[in-house]
Amino acid sequence: MTSEVSDLVATAREGRPRAVARLISMVENGSPGLREITALLCADRPHRARIIGLTGPPGVGKSTSTGMLVHAFRRRGMRVGVLAVDPSSPFTGGALLGDRVRMQDHATDPDVFIRSMASRGHLGGLAWATPQALRVLEAAGCEVVLVETVGVGQAEVDVASLADTTVVLLAPGMGDGVQVAKAGILEVADVFVVNKADREGTQAAIRELRNMIALADRPWRPPVVPTVALRGEGAEEVVAALDGHLAYLEGSGELVRRRQARARNEIEAIALTTLRSRFADLHGDRRLDVLAARVLDAELDPYTAADELLAAAGRPG
Amino acid sequence: MTSEVSDLVATAREGRPRAVARLISMVENGSPGLREITALLCADRPHRARIIGLTGPPGVGKSTSTGMLVHAFRRRGMRVGVLAVDPSSPFTGGALLGDRVRMQDHATDPDVFIRSMASRGHLGGLAWATPQALRVLEAAGCEVVLVETVGVGQAEVDVASLADTTVVLLAPGMGDGVQVAKAGILEVADVFVVNKADREGTQAAIRELRNMIALADRPWRPPVVPTVALRGEGAEEVVAALDGHLAYLEGSGELVRRRQARARNEIEAIALTTLRSRFADLHGDRRLDVLAARVLDAELDPYTAADELLAAAGRPG
Repeated sequence: MTSEVSDLVATAREGRPRAVARLISMVENGSPGLREITALLCADRPHRARIIGLTGPPGVGKSTSTGMLVHAFRRRGMRVGVLAVDPSSPFTGGALLGDRVRMQDHATDPDVFIRSMASRGHLGGLAWATPQALRVLEAAGCEVVLVETVGVGQAEVDVASLADTTVVLLAPGMGDGVQVAKAGILEVADVFVVNKADREGTQAAIRELRNMIALADRPWRPPVVPTVALRGEGAEEVVAALDGHLAYLEGSGELVRRRQARARNEIEAIALTTLRSRFADLHGDRRLDVLAARVLDAELDPYTAADELLAAAGRPG
Repeated sequence: MTSEVSDLVATAREGRPRAVARLISMVENGSPGLREITALLCADRPHRARIIGLTGPPGVGKSTSTGMLVHAFRRRGMRVGVLAVDPSSPFTGGALLGDRVRMQDHATDPDVFIRSMASRGHLGGLAWATPQALRVLEAAGCEVVLVETVGVGQAEVDVASLADTTVVLLAPGMGDGVQVAKAGILEVADVFVVNKADREGTQAAIRELRNMIALADRPWRPPVVPTVALRGEGAEEVVAALDGHLAYLEGSGELVRRRQARARNEIEAIALTTLRSRFADLHGDRRLDVLAARVLDAELDPYTAADELLAAAGRPG
C-alpha cells in the first residue's frame, strides 16, 4: 500500500486527473490508506487554495453559476477545482460520475478539475470527507476550489463552513427573503448573488435582501450581485465581490480565524470517527455487549457504562 | 441538587404528572442533573415497559392512531405513556406544550402520560434524550409507551430503533409501495397499519404491501392491518397484531437482542456526547486551538492531531 499511495500522491501533485480522481475516491470511501494519504498531502503542501462555497435552493442555477465562475477564474489563468456536493446538481445525481465529470466547456481544459461527491447519509460523512478532498485538489495545484452545495440541510451548512467565502444564490420570485430568514442563511452568506436577474421581481428581491442585510449587525456587509449565469452576465462583478471579501478576510484577521475553526472541526470530526470505529472494535470484543447487558440488568447506569466504554476506547491496543 | 432530584424521582415514581413532566424536561434539556437522574431511575427500576414505535409519512393519521391505541390499552387497564417526537404532530408543534399535553379524551385520566419532545437539531440529540424519557415514564409506572415519530429522517429511524415493536402507518393512495421501498422501511416495520381504510385503493395498497412482504426474506412476516382510526375501527386487530409480535419477540430471543442493541446504542450515544463536551473543554483550554494551528502550519496532519485530542480527552480531569 505505502509505495502505491505515495506514487499516487506524487502523480496527483503533477496534476494528473486520473490520480486526483482516484485519491478523492479513496478519501470519500474512507479507504484504509486515508491516514497515510492525508499525512502525505499535509507533509509538503505547496500552497493553500482559496475555497469558495456556493449554496442556494434547488433550481436557482448553482451549477450554471459554478460554470460561469470557472470561466472567470480561468480567464485569470488560475487552476480551478470544483467539488459538487449538491445532490440535485447535474454533476452528481447521487453518485460519482467517473473520474472527471466533463463540464460542458471545460472538458479538454487540463487546468479544471471537477468532482462530484456523493452526499453520504451517515453522520459527519460529508463534513469529514470534504476537507480531505480539498487537500487533494490543493495538492494538484488548484488555486481556487468552488464547493457547490444545496442550501437546505445541516450537512450542507457544515460544508459551507469549510469555505473562506460563502456565496448564497437566490433567484427572483422564490420568496427569497423568507427563505433567507428561515434558513438562517444571512449568517453564513458573505456574498449574495441574485441569479436569473432578467426576470421580473429582480429589483424587489435585491431591495429586500439589502434591507435584511442592513438590519443585521455584522462587520462585513454582504454585497448583492445580480447575474444571468446562463449568458455569463455578471461574472466579473461576482469575482470582484469575492475579491472584496477576500481582502476583508485578510485585513481583519478573519481568514486565519476561519481556517483555524475549519482545522478544529476537521480534527474533531476525525476524532469522533476514530472513536466510533474503536467502539465497533469493542463490540467485536463483546466488551460493549457486556456493558449493555449490565445496563439492562440495572447493575449499571448508562452514564457509568459510557465512562467505562470511553476509558476502554482510550486505552491503546 | 441531589436531594431535590431524588425527591423529584420519588414523586415521579408515585405517578405524579408534574414530577414526570419536570423530569422529562430536565432530560430533554440536558440538565446538569441528568447523570444523577438516570442513576436514580436505573437504581430501582420496578419494571420494564413495552415500547411501541409508530411511524409513517405526514398526513397518514399517526396522532389519531396513537389516540386509538391509548384507548385500547386503557381498556386493558394498563397505564400508558406517549412520547410524540413527530415534528408534524399536533402534540408537538416544534416545542414543548407544557407539563402534560391534554389529548382529547385522556385529559382527566391519571393513567395516561402524554409528552411532546422537541426534535432537536443537533446530532444524536433525540437518540440520546429519548431513552432517558422512556425511563422516566417506566418509573412512573407506564406499562406500555407509544413513541410517535414521522418516518422520514435518520433521527426518526433512530428513534424507531428504540422500540420493541415498530408500527409503520400508511394510507391508500399515497404511493405507499414506492415509499416503503424507498425509505427502506420494510426492514424496520414489524406491523403495517393501512389507515383510512374506508378510502378507495385500500385493497390494492394491502395487496401491494403483502407482495413486498412476501418477497422479503425475514423470519417475522409483518401483518398488515386495515384501520379507520378516526372511528376507532381496527383497534383490537392492531393490538392483537402487537401481541403476536411480542410473543414472537419473546419466543425467538429477539426481544433480548433488541433491548441489548438499544442499551449499546444508548451507551455509545452518551459516550460520544460526553466526548464532545470534553472537546469543548479542551477548546476552552486552548489545547484544541493549538492542535488546529499546528495542522494549519502543516506541522501535524489532522489524524495525528485527532489522536492527540482523543488522548487528551481520555485523561481524567
